[in-house]
Amino acid sequence: MHSNETEHINVMKFTSGEVIEATDQVAVEEPLEIQLAYSSANGYMKKNIAVTMRTPGNDEELAIGFLFTEGVIKSMDGVKQVQCFTADKNRVLVTLEENVPPVLNNVVRNFYTTSSCGVCGKASIDAISIAPVYPSEKDDILIPAGLLHALPGIARKQQRIFDDTGGLHASALFSLDGNLLLIREDVGRHNALDKIIGAAFLKGELPLHQTILLLSGRAGFELVQKAFVAGIKIIVAVGAPSSLAVELAKETGITLIGFLRNEKFNIYSGSQRIQL
Amino acid sequence: MHSNETEHINVMKFTSGEVIEATDQVAVEEPLEIQLAYSSANGYMKKNIAVTMRTPGNDEELAIGFLFTEGVIKSMDGVKQVQCFTADKNRVLVTLEENVPPVLNNVVRNFYTTSSCGVCGKASIDAISIAPVYPSEKDDILIPAGLLHALPGIARKQQRIFDDTGGLHASALFSLDGNLLLIREDVGRHNALDKIIGAAFLKGELPLHQTILLLSGRAGFELVQKAFVAGIKIIVAVGAPSSLAVELAKETGITLIGFLRNEKFNIYSGSQRIQL
Repeated sequence: MHSNETEHINVMKFTSGEVIEATDQVAVEEPLEIQLAYSSANGYMKKNIAVTMRTPGNDEELAIGFLFTEGVIKSMDGVKQVQCFTADKNRVLVTLEENVPPVLNNVVRNFYTTSSCGVCGKASIDAISIAPVYPSEKDDILIPAGLLHALPGIARKQQRIFDDTGGLHASALFSLDGNLLLIREDVGRHNALDKIIGAAFLKGELPLHQTILLLSGRAGFELVQKAFVAGIKIIVAVGAPSSLAVELAKETGITLIGFLRNEKFNIYSGSQRIQL
Repeated sequence: MHSNETEHINVMKFTSGEVIEATDQVAVEEPLEIQLAYSSANGYMKKNIAVTMRTPGNDEELAIGFLFTEGVIKSMDGVKQVQCFTADKNRVLVTLEENVPPVLNNVVRNFYTTSSCGVCGKASIDAISIAPVYPSEKDDILIPAGLLHALPGIARKQQRIFDDTGGLHASALFSLDGNLLLIREDVGRHNALDKIIGAAFLKGELPLHQTILLLSGRAGFELVQKAFVAGIKIIVAVGAPSSLAVELAKETGITLIGFLRNEKFNIYSGSQRIQL
């Protein structure tokens, strides 16, 4: 049992007509509130930014990764403190340095919200503006196709919660030569990626230009958007991409690969980085 | 090709060292804005309630299902009009009857939000109040275990977008004797379920006490919550449940089954409804 990431519960297992009572491990899912404190004319203000249903663990990373990939915070310089309340584990408070203003319009725009939203009424990705944090620079990254096949197997060996529960999304970061740098699991796929990016943010390792991002499932728009903000140039998904994910990858020059399994994969954009 | 649910794109397919250029179908993902119009002292007000990344199609169902399962609207009597703007396909406007007030605090509470939230600071499901729409009544539902095994295969035959793209979540509703009543697919698993429940709402078929809900993937808290609001008593998931999903199913008397595959399944709660 891994602390509070999994939970043992009683279950009736049915197998070809036989029933046994057993204990099963399930992935823990709990709400996390992300709060931001920032200076204003009236002193420090505190604002509740988001609530996400997540698997506990690496909550500071999750909060920081969320705030960064949603454009609320820009760099570690602007962050004074990250507090994970232990007596009250479902809250992370991120305090900005004095005179560092948060950018809050993106959070309102990107998520379910009660506020007005600028996304809709336009049918395309053009409507969803993404502020690039890092200047785009040319690269000559070239990955042998064979290297990609090995990545899911390497990641899988480290997916310890998945092994226990069969029920978690994972994001994994690899070096360009295929070494696993970081892996995070969560009931929410966005959370797993926010944790990865948040960890890199906290260690001062952004941008992630020289890495490969592996997604255990499908590649949706928001995952590609988060990866883009972190400077990731190669995204490899075990599952299918969506139309908008492909469109965004093309527009931002990201290499997007899907259906990486059984010695096969599809390249949806940026094939120049894959040595075929 | 199925209208605007899938999109053809060019792709490079890599198979054991060979590369071919081909066309591939991907599931379309686009934002949908859900707007609500309701009467107030100053006449009708319009409010943007939510933006969700969804696969186009059945957007009225999605909007209505979302508003119902989040507690914003209670019954079809209170709904005057549902308008899906065709020149501007990414917006659905739901207009309430005069003097029918929307309940908006739930939307703020349940989702990523910029507003204050009452969920966090408490570690458990107790913090997340759900208003039951239908009085709980005793039932003597009894489903033969063998019937459950057949459900994914029946649903799969109708998952036409999945077959084309390999990339969609599905929710399917079955009668208690295993007949498929309705199936919806979407890039977002919550959307697929909202579409199912919205369709039933629009047809006046709620509550769904006498049905079985099949989920193509994992069973998270929010899916169980939505099913509960619609009166569903049996949830069968092909994937794993989360801790909070199990807890909610137990508290609300829902039968929750997971890992339904290869003639096996696990019963996490409500085993009295399954004939073993």
